[in-house]
Amino acid sequence: MTESKYPMIPVEEAQQIVLAHVAPLPAEDVPFDEALDRVLAEDVYAGEDMPPFAASAKDGFAVRAADGVQPRRLLGEQMAGLMATLHVEPGTAVRITTGAPVPPGADAVIMVEYTTVEGDTVRLSKAVQPGDDVRPPGQDIVQGQLVLPAGTAIGPAEIGLLATVGQVRVPVYARPRVATMSTGDELVEPGETPAPGQIRDSNRYTLAAAAHRAGATVVDLGHAPDTAEALTTHFGEGLAHADVVVTSGGVSMGELDLVKPLLEEIGTVHFGRVHIKPGFATVDGKPFFALPGFPVSSLVAFEVFVRPALRKMAGFRELFRPRHHVTLRHDVRHSADRPEFARAIVEWEDGRLFARTTGFQGSGRLLSLVGANALLALPHGRGDFRAGEKVEALLIG
Amino acid sequence: MTESKYPMIPVEEAQQIVLAHVAPLPAEDVPFDEALDRVLAEDVYAGEDMPPFAASAKDGFAVRAADGVQPRRLLGEQMAGLMATLHVEPGTAVRITTGAPVPPGADAVIMVEYTTVEGDTVRLSKAVQPGDDVRPPGQDIVQGQLVLPAGTAIGPAEIGLLATVGQVRVPVYARPRVATMSTGDELVEPGETPAPGQIRDSNRYTLAAAAHRAGATVVDLGHAPDTAEALTTHFGEGLAHADVVVTSGGVSMGELDLVKPLLEEIGTVHFGRVHIKPGFATVDGKPFFALPGFPVSSLVAFEVFVRPALRKMAGFRELFRPRHHVTLRHDVRHSADRPEFARAIVEWEDGRLFARTTGFQGSGRLLSLVGANALLALPHGRGDFRAGEKVEALLIG
Repeated sequence: MTESKYPMIPVEEAQQIVLAHVAPLPAEDVPFDEALDRVLAEDVYAGEDMPPFAASAKDGFAVRAADGVQPRRLLGEQMAGLMATLHVEPGTAVRITTGAPVPPGADAVIMVEYTTVEGDTVRLSKAVQPGDDVRPPGQDIVQGQLVLPAGTAIGPAEIGLLATVGQVRVPVYARPRVATMSTGDELVEPGETPAPGQIRDSNRYTLAAAAHRAGATVVDLGHAPDTAEALTTHFGEGLAHADVVVTSGGVSMGELDLVKPLLEEIGTVHFGRVHIKPGFATVDGKPFFALPGFPVSSLVAFEVFVRPALRKMAGFRELFRPRHHVTLRHDVRHSADRPEFARAIVEWEDGRLFARTTGFQGSGRLLSLVGANALLALPHGRGDFRAGEKVEALLIG
Repeated sequence: MTESKYPMIPVEEAQQIVLAHVAPLPAEDVPFDEALDRVLAEDVYAGEDMPPFAASAKDGFAVRAADGVQPRRLLGEQMAGLMATLHVEPGTAVRITTGAPVPPGADAVIMVEYTTVEGDTVRLSKAVQPGDDVRPPGQDIVQGQLVLPAGTAIGPAEIGLLATVGQVRVPVYARPRVATMSTGDELVEPGETPAPGQIRDSNRYTLAAAAHRAGATVVDLGHAPDTAEALTTHFGEGLAHADVVVTSGGVSMGELDLVKPLLEEIGTVHFGRVHIKPGFATVDGKPFFALPGFPVSSLVAFEVFVRPALRKMAGFRELFRPRHHVTLRHDVRHSADRPEFARAIVEWEDGRLFARTTGFQGSGRLLSLVGANALLALPHGRGDFRAGEKVEALLIG
């Protein structure tokens, strides 16, 4: 039996090797409203209190609480956006809108619903306490406060906070640029009609979509024929224009496996054989993933190895999908001689997670991934599973 | 007490009213590799078998299983991408690569690892069964099969399937175009320094980011001063260039609440007062959401009312966030007189979901949304909750 020159290593060990060889990319400044789904590279502090002044929380009347329910003489109006000019003396009130500065002298706001106005007299149907419906300066944010620490993943609320504190340009980690390519003489483009012996290329597009979802931008290197020259040219293009190269196909053990020997020439192969078959190298410090050619294997290998690397490069702290124990709804066949990531649909029921697989699990059968929201981590070393057993699942959906 | 002219209605009723007034947008054809996160508007069928021919699943030798372990005479090589030309007679073998057509006469492939070659003799270290490592035509997809039904949300695997079956243009529902604007005389742009009485606008940016996340494109209408003329102009712009208009601010009960009266003039107000305060109207059939001006209230109202509507317009079948019961880690103060969506961090522990809130829950305090992955639905009609109690949570993260 011909042995592979690369020892077979466990998936977790391979993940650790990958992460040890990738680091967050340099930071860049972007407009705050283009920072969605990026990761902050520096702490953001507040330059002012928020609200910056005592602000009314309601539309109503600014009053002095100590006046109780006695009718107030209406002095005028305080609109939002204008500095307070009136002064609320005992027995008086100022009409006020939500967000407007509470005029000096007033210590509470009474909602318009609890008032009636006749001429310049305001009647209150209840008393108020000092501070009622007044947002004191700094209630939400205090000047000098750390609002968003470095490492924060930026969502809609974080965009709003950046706007609030006036941080219109923000330092975020660069998005990884991923070069994708496929290898295999049997491949034609999706728009072409395959001749006998040929099939359409799908992996390049699947992997590009997965890279987009992981927050990367994509450089499409196209499809390389199975020659050392073509591969070398494509690799060079990828390394020149991207931070990460991802190939699919050409990594099995046959004599036409050209990818890994070429990687040994130009870089360092860190592992060449995991049970689910990817190779991982670095070339001039750039990570290079050689994924298998079977469509499902290649997308699963992307999930398990490439996505965590891209997340680390983009500055995220959470690199891995959530893993949870799920209960199998039916028997699951599994070969003990290798680990497998079976495609499954996981659902909640009575506070527990249940899983059913998505039909025939052939490594070429992309259909087994349609609708799947989980990968069941079926381990090396034990065989079939029975309905009701628990297995660990990566929640990918 | 002045009464609002709009009756207070429950959140769930308001959600149903919204969904009854929105429909999926028309379909449009897009290139398959730009269809990520869109929803298929028509069924997609396979035009051919996949694989289209009996294909080798491994690098090795195509043989006849009935020959057992006897050495085979090597006839030549069958590469991937080429039509099969050799014929495997009894006692012979053809070298074959993964994905190559299995030559006529052969009924199995033996992996290269189980073989040795001397000259033109191939020795096998084990016998094979008919069908071993051969992927029969149609194993993954059968000609005429429904591969992706209308309504499928398109992810990386679906992109790969579209490539596989050669569907290079795909009918998907249009993305909703959302026009966003904010109202309020106190607002200045994030890049400006607020004068006394002013604050920076954040809602427009928060809502635009939330709309992006929901799969919409955004038309920024900017910030309108609190005058009927300005609002009318902005509304007209939004209705002319977008499928949905979302405003923030100007919907409280004060005399300056101009938004809803204007909507009554130009359209139909379906509700004007839910506990969490949005208004919802349609104008010429287009949905129009008037969200509150407080930053947290406006984003929560977007989550609860606008996002499901955008999802429906984009063709998604799953409109709502998952809701689960979570156990409170600490006491939670809550006022019985209104429902509230409290911002919380939900975590797994021992197979159960636990929640802690994100500090002071002021409706202006965007910080309470930072890091939050859930909204606790604290109901109308009961007060404070104790640590250990269960409440329902919308998982938003």
